[in-house]
Amino acid sequence: MMKIVIDCFGGDHSPEANVEGALSALSHFPDLYLILTGDERMLRERLQGKMHDASRIEIVHAPEVIGCDERPIDVIRLKKESSMIKAVRMLRDRDDIAAMVSVGSTGALVAAALTRIGRVKGVIRPAFCPILPTMDGGLVGICDSGANVEVTPEHLRQFAIMSSLYMKNVYNIENPRIALLNVGKEAEKGDEIRQKAHILLRETPEINFVGNMESRDLLSGHYDVVVCDGFSGNVLVKTTEGTALELLKKLKKDIYSRTLYKMGALLMKRMFEEEKQFMNYQNYGGSVLLGTSKTVVKGHGSSKAASIEKCIEQAYKMEVSALSSKMEEIIMKYDHYEY
Amino acid sequence: MMKIVIDCFGGDHSPEANVEGALSALSHFPDLYLILTGDERMLRERLQGKMHDASRIEIVHAPEVIGCDERPIDVIRLKKESSMIKAVRMLRDRDDIAAMVSVGSTGALVAAALTRIGRVKGVIRPAFCPILPTMDGGLVGICDSGANVEVTPEHLRQFAIMSSLYMKNVYNIENPRIALLNVGKEAEKGDEIRQKAHILLRETPEINFVGNMESRDLLSGHYDVVVCDGFSGNVLVKTTEGTALELLKKLKKDIYSRTLYKMGALLMKRMFEEEKQFMNYQNYGGSVLLGTSKTVVKGHGSSKAASIEKCIEQAYKMEVSALSSKMEEIIMKYDHYEY
Repeated sequence: MMKIVIDCFGGDHSPEANVEGALSALSHFPDLYLILTGDERMLRERLQGKMHDASRIEIVHAPEVIGCDERPIDVIRLKKESSMIKAVRMLRDRDDIAAMVSVGSTGALVAAALTRIGRVKGVIRPAFCPILPTMDGGLVGICDSGANVEVTPEHLRQFAIMSSLYMKNVYNIENPRIALLNVGKEAEKGDEIRQKAHILLRETPEINFVGNMESRDLLSGHYDVVVCDGFSGNVLVKTTEGTALELLKKLKKDIYSRTLYKMGALLMKRMFEEEKQFMNYQNYGGSVLLGTSKTVVKGHGSSKAASIEKCIEQAYKMEVSALSSKMEEIIMKYDHYEY
Repeated sequence: MMKIVIDCFGGDHSPEANVEGALSALSHFPDLYLILTGDERMLRERLQGKMHDASRIEIVHAPEVIGCDERPIDVIRLKKESSMIKAVRMLRDRDDIAAMVSVGSTGALVAAALTRIGRVKGVIRPAFCPILPTMDGGLVGICDSGANVEVTPEHLRQFAIMSSLYMKNVYNIENPRIALLNVGKEAEKGDEIRQKAHILLRETPEINFVGNMESRDLLSGHYDVVVCDGFSGNVLVKTTEGTALELLKKLKKDIYSRTLYKMGALLMKRMFEEEKQFMNYQNYGGSVLLGTSKTVVKGHGSSKAASIEKCIEQAYKMEVSALSSKMEEIIMKYDHYEY
């Protein structure tokens, strides 16, 4: 039985979407068992009348609510009875629980996970690895996308090892092509951190390092993972999402500006619907935190049921493939470098 | 008479595009005088048969060619007779020349400009400021976009002062709204550099600092300039350009996949043409280097004539508005901070 705890509050569509996503995941994975945290009465109400196997659901009451502006440190210290912190504590304390999924505040989740959940042996810094769709129909992972705004070359090597294993085990990509985000293709580009990381990555035979990547090539389909510090990774992911959404919005506005365009768009209705789905980043699940001893998946704050289900699936696959022990095995080979 | 030197080689469409762009600029600005550097015979051939006022054009022979893979430092030392280095040296040596435009290697141009051309008094580091179109029909400047991969909080303040003056004087934006690129809106987000820069920017009454900006809002139209280190600025600009181009390519491919879509697109032909022009970053000119004592404008390597003309116009407007003395005036107020 695979047990995963779901933080059922904190998202724009909570708890509806969380409960629905959970039930849907249960119907797809027969050995899945879910623990839902949040206001018990509200959760029971949401379950009522919906088909589900009650023997595989546990509800844990967590009545406190986290405010939008609360500082992560205060959330950890003062909101112990919130759905997120309760989920993190259960993940830490209960040996039978393997993973957690949350759509709540990223800052609080990172802080809680890093201070309450242990790290995989040898891992210096856990890192986020969200997934974006590439233009050739594939996927690309970005690691780190925001857990560490400052990094060392050795951190970057660990991000590469962890995300390579992730893409291989969860997305079935054989020998993932790993790139280093930089301001140019040449090895000597960028600051000292990038230059040293380039050398370290080249000297790590366990990964398939293909060199530096310029950000304009992110969606080209030539790379399976791009490794970067959390600051520029955050810029990379959010700029891609932002540009795509703004362009779609502009197209829509321009189409509505003339009858002729509206007629044309009518013929292309299905195509535009597909483009919209293609660029809807919810369809690609959440951002997994790589390197914690138990799996933590962070979904978009705006996640709907399908996206929550994807997050649960990601957590499930990470655990099934025993990702952490695979990480440990490789990372411990390099553990003499830096702590 | 405003004299500007044009490096006529180094771009994908050189020297054709450079010469054509130069002639077009001459016809628009009656007090403009251009010095073209490059292979004299080739340049004279390109001028032949084209309407132009020969009394406002000077050709300076520079026969050496810069290779694609040459290191900036070697270019400066060994390619003194190349069109770019000759242009930089003339800009330095001749008091009558006010500015230069180049579409050659960015690395070599930055290295040559920083070592050969002086800085505005008080400026610690010159910075690039390219312009992107926003979705509401406006423009946004990104400073720095790659001249400095590492920065201090004081550098960021100077970038803000310089780019604010640039947007005001060249693009007629009253009281430009300046944002700091960060991983969240709150003042305490990001690394120490960002946190300190946030405070410095708030304490600089000469600029209209509106707070942190997350990269997904770059094209929103809510900001006139975003200030950042050259590494993440490079990621920001190139990701935006890359995502827009990849999406257009995908749309085109999808349209061609079905007859129905092709018919729809036919009705929307003009709209798609407009979108393409809107997202063609050549239409917005080049990236100016702010903070050098004489103006340097770097155009896209793929610049065509219209884009070269835009670059010349940018250089012209910067000089006409006496930007450097305005920069100096403000920056010298803060010159006790750091050198």
